[in-house]
Amino acid sequence: MNGAQALIRTLVGAGVDVCFANPGTSEMHFVAALDDVPEMRGVLTLFEGVATGAADAYARMTGRPAATLLHLGPGLGNGLANLHNARRSRAPVVNVVGDHARSHKRLDAPLESDIDALAGTVSAWVRRSLSPADVGADAADAVAAARDGVATLVLPADVSWSEGAAVAEPVGPRPVPHVPPSVVDDVAAVLRRDEPAVLFVGGEVMASEAGLRAAARIAAGTGTRLLAETFPPRTVRGAGLPDVPRLPYPPEMALASLEGTAHLVLAGAQAPVHFFGYPDLPGTPVPRDCAVHALSRPGEDGVAALEALASAVAPGAAPQVAEAQRPEPPSGPLDPRSLSAVVGALLPEGAIVVDEALTSGVGLAEMTAGAPRHDWLSLTGGSIGDGLPMAAGAAVACPDRPVIGIQADGSAMYTISALWTHAREGLDVTTVVCDNGSYGILEHELSRVGAAQGGERARRLLDLGGPPLDFVQLAAGLGVPASRVETAEHLADQLGRALSESGPHLVQAVLRR
Amino acid sequence: MNGAQALIRTLVGAGVDVCFANPGTSEMHFVAALDDVPEMRGVLTLFEGVATGAADAYARMTGRPAATLLHLGPGLGNGLANLHNARRSRAPVVNVVGDHARSHKRLDAPLESDIDALAGTVSAWVRRSLSPADVGADAADAVAAARDGVATLVLPADVSWSEGAAVAEPVGPRPVPHVPPSVVDDVAAVLRRDEPAVLFVGGEVMASEAGLRAAARIAAGTGTRLLAETFPPRTVRGAGLPDVPRLPYPPEMALASLEGTAHLVLAGAQAPVHFFGYPDLPGTPVPRDCAVHALSRPGEDGVAALEALASAVAPGAAPQVAEAQRPEPPSGPLDPRSLSAVVGALLPEGAIVVDEALTSGVGLAEMTAGAPRHDWLSLTGGSIGDGLPMAAGAAVACPDRPVIGIQADGSAMYTISALWTHAREGLDVTTVVCDNGSYGILEHELSRVGAAQGGERARRLLDLGGPPLDFVQLAAGLGVPASRVETAEHLADQLGRALSESGPHLVQAVLRR
Repeated sequence: MNGAQALIRTLVGAGVDVCFANPGTSEMHFVAALDDVPEMRGVLTLFEGVATGAADAYARMTGRPAATLLHLGPGLGNGLANLHNARRSRAPVVNVVGDHARSHKRLDAPLESDIDALAGTVSAWVRRSLSPADVGADAADAVAAARDGVATLVLPADVSWSEGAAVAEPVGPRPVPHVPPSVVDDVAAVLRRDEPAVLFVGGEVMASEAGLRAAARIAAGTGTRLLAETFPPRTVRGAGLPDVPRLPYPPEMALASLEGTAHLVLAGAQAPVHFFGYPDLPGTPVPRDCAVHALSRPGEDGVAALEALASAVAPGAAPQVAEAQRPEPPSGPLDPRSLSAVVGALLPEGAIVVDEALTSGVGLAEMTAGAPRHDWLSLTGGSIGDGLPMAAGAAVACPDRPVIGIQADGSAMYTISALWTHAREGLDVTTVVCDNGSYGILEHELSRVGAAQGGERARRLLDLGGPPLDFVQLAAGLGVPASRVETAEHLADQLGRALSESGPHLVQAVLRR
Repeated sequence: MNGAQALIRTLVGAGVDVCFANPGTSEMHFVAALDDVPEMRGVLTLFEGVATGAADAYARMTGRPAATLLHLGPGLGNGLANLHNARRSRAPVVNVVGDHARSHKRLDAPLESDIDALAGTVSAWVRRSLSPADVGADAADAVAAARDGVATLVLPADVSWSEGAAVAEPVGPRPVPHVPPSVVDDVAAVLRRDEPAVLFVGGEVMASEAGLRAAARIAAGTGTRLLAETFPPRTVRGAGLPDVPRLPYPPEMALASLEGTAHLVLAGAQAPVHFFGYPDLPGTPVPRDCAVHALSRPGEDGVAALEALASAVAPGAAPQVAEAQRPEPPSGPLDPRSLSAVVGALLPEGAIVVDEALTSGVGLAEMTAGAPRHDWLSLTGGSIGDGLPMAAGAAVACPDRPVIGIQADGSAMYTISALWTHAREGLDVTTVVCDNGSYGILEHELSRVGAAQGGERARRLLDLGGPPLDFVQLAAGLGVPASRVETAEHLADQLGRALSESGPHLVQAVLRR
């Protein structure tokens, strides 16, 4: 058995049976070995950032890693932006990066570069397989290490092609650390003081119905305010579930949201900081005199800790949950709010919403809170171009659930070829492109950083209007049927139609300027 | 004056007056400052890899750096693949990467990452501007350092926005090292021995008419064989110039090409190695018993060294040059050879050819050798997705010259949004997409690495046919008029028409399968 075969069989044995791949010459034995191991599904992407973004979403939805297959340093470079997002999601990913044969490394061939340096910036774990005899065990270790985030396995071409490899047994995952009862007791004591407190939830708590219910019971029983991190990796939402407001993105609004808070209790979240630094603003919205208490850190069993805390401080409390309700279908020209209302009116049961709407997403959370149960995936690391790839990964992870991407236009262009993968795999993904013809978030930032008098030349660097991007033609060129709408009625019509048919669709929603 | 203004004014003063930009929030003051310094031309790209590939080609054509403007670590990540190619070109690039404000760095905000580690993998020089007082001098140093390749300047947002900065004077470039006469004498002695010798030229020699003429005189006067590196950054070519054959890419052909060579004399090139390692093949095509002599290393004045050598060993020799001739316009279905013949028949005087044809480019060099004078840009680092961005950079560098991109289909998809920049800037770029519906080079590699029985599942990972990529619609969606051709006559018709009109065009050339 050669190294590639042992690698793939070990991955499959450890439960990793999807590989989002964009291979090159050094990965040809891995590709060939796919024919020997039919349990591994290879999903081709036309750009590495699609593979890595898809692996992030796949992991968020299944809790299990997918593998990637990237080509040397430049391929890893192309995949880095979405691996950065995966790092911020703490998503398990087995990131396989092919490299030159060992004997070829010292020759400084044209594609030679420092793969390990690149991998180190996004990975919780990096290993280079040194021989065919090692590769099975390396793969098993990679799957186990992926519990902590991106595990990068660098795979020399000759380790792939050489015989003498063997399949390794899966390595049991390390147990999730429990939160000590004393920590729960300490936080309970804080919440009993009757001082203004915020329970700040994030990470795996947001993906857990039990976690959200426990948090909402604590809020109901103690008067503690419940707030979520701004961009949780995955949120379970909808009618019957607690609807936890998220900390606003704009720094002034975030500051106002936490003003007067005496105690900030963290459950699965880090203490919040602003996305960017700004002149004359502090770096974090947490008030200077606010005490921060960590009930659970990311990676710990925050759900159990919240349940213990709820039992302690709010034994009889009932959580407040979202009522089943949908917005009235709006009419007339589209703006972010009416677009959100259409989505809220039509969101199907069990949908997975991939939210890279950015400035066009105002109102989206509110308008969908009472929709049937669904999952919500956010842009965790701020590296744009995550939406279309994540939609692919979510659809591969959950083939029986509809995926709806709400996608900003500028961001869509970073990884537009993901649409081809939607079509190739017949994925049930409906993409709504929010077309405002600009980098809307940057127009806002240009004024807010103090550069208020942005003139003609500066504005032109943020304007996508000349020539306008025609997403209907782009989608058609990539095999995805598409339409263009300018009114809420037409959006409802086209979105409804797309949702009623399986397979990929795209709707270019032109927003009123 | 704030840091951004001082930076841009210093760059302009040092001759850097084009910036290929894909900015984000942390770069908003740089964007705003563009209105204060109209001498700096900002060119917007929709993806960072377009900006970096454009800067590479701009530098190859002008010998001067352009600036880039990238957004934090993820933006640099997206730009890395084409910075890798620029590194292999030794192209001067001033790579400006915005970063968080200094006070924000320690907060581990979502977009925080190790920019310096990423930059180190592609840069000849990396510096982080530490204060507004430094940024002018840092920019001047970056321009000087770019003589050696990519110079990355990391620019914290608050260094941009803070007052107290000043413009710095340009730093004179270090002189190009001359080759000592003793080295020329030693090589002359080798060539006089009448043993089988190859003069292996590359780098700046290929971009110099004088360098190529000197090399061809040496060949004519001594019987030394003349051979060029496989992927020179820029080659001056056409009727009346020496047509130097390039070392073949396939390892077996490269080995055959150098078989029996007793002396390999390097001028501007490194000793060749194969692109990849393969089972049972040596890593380099240089015979074991061949002596390698470096006349000039990359970055040294190889042209002067060749002229001195020519005077010494071939004083009266006349160089062999390509005769003015064009292929007969072919007819019938398209294949790589007939496509190349059409290009050779129509190539206009002064054209810049951007060659990312890969497997579809067989015959291209031969069919264009006798065309009117032109420049040829190759994929230097093997990181695909360079063609469309390089075409943009070459057209910005040389607005009065037609640019023709010969572009493989799979590679085009990595940076397809470059077409939008072609349209936005009204660039005179004609892109011929060679549509073979597959990663042709990988199908070849799949069999040649020994994985000969690639089955259905493996083949599917190399096939771009389901759904087929419709480049006419993709181009139209990005504002570039396009057509699709299946015969040589139709290609000639459409290519001729595109070349007769200014502005961008695309022709999807469907190759017979």
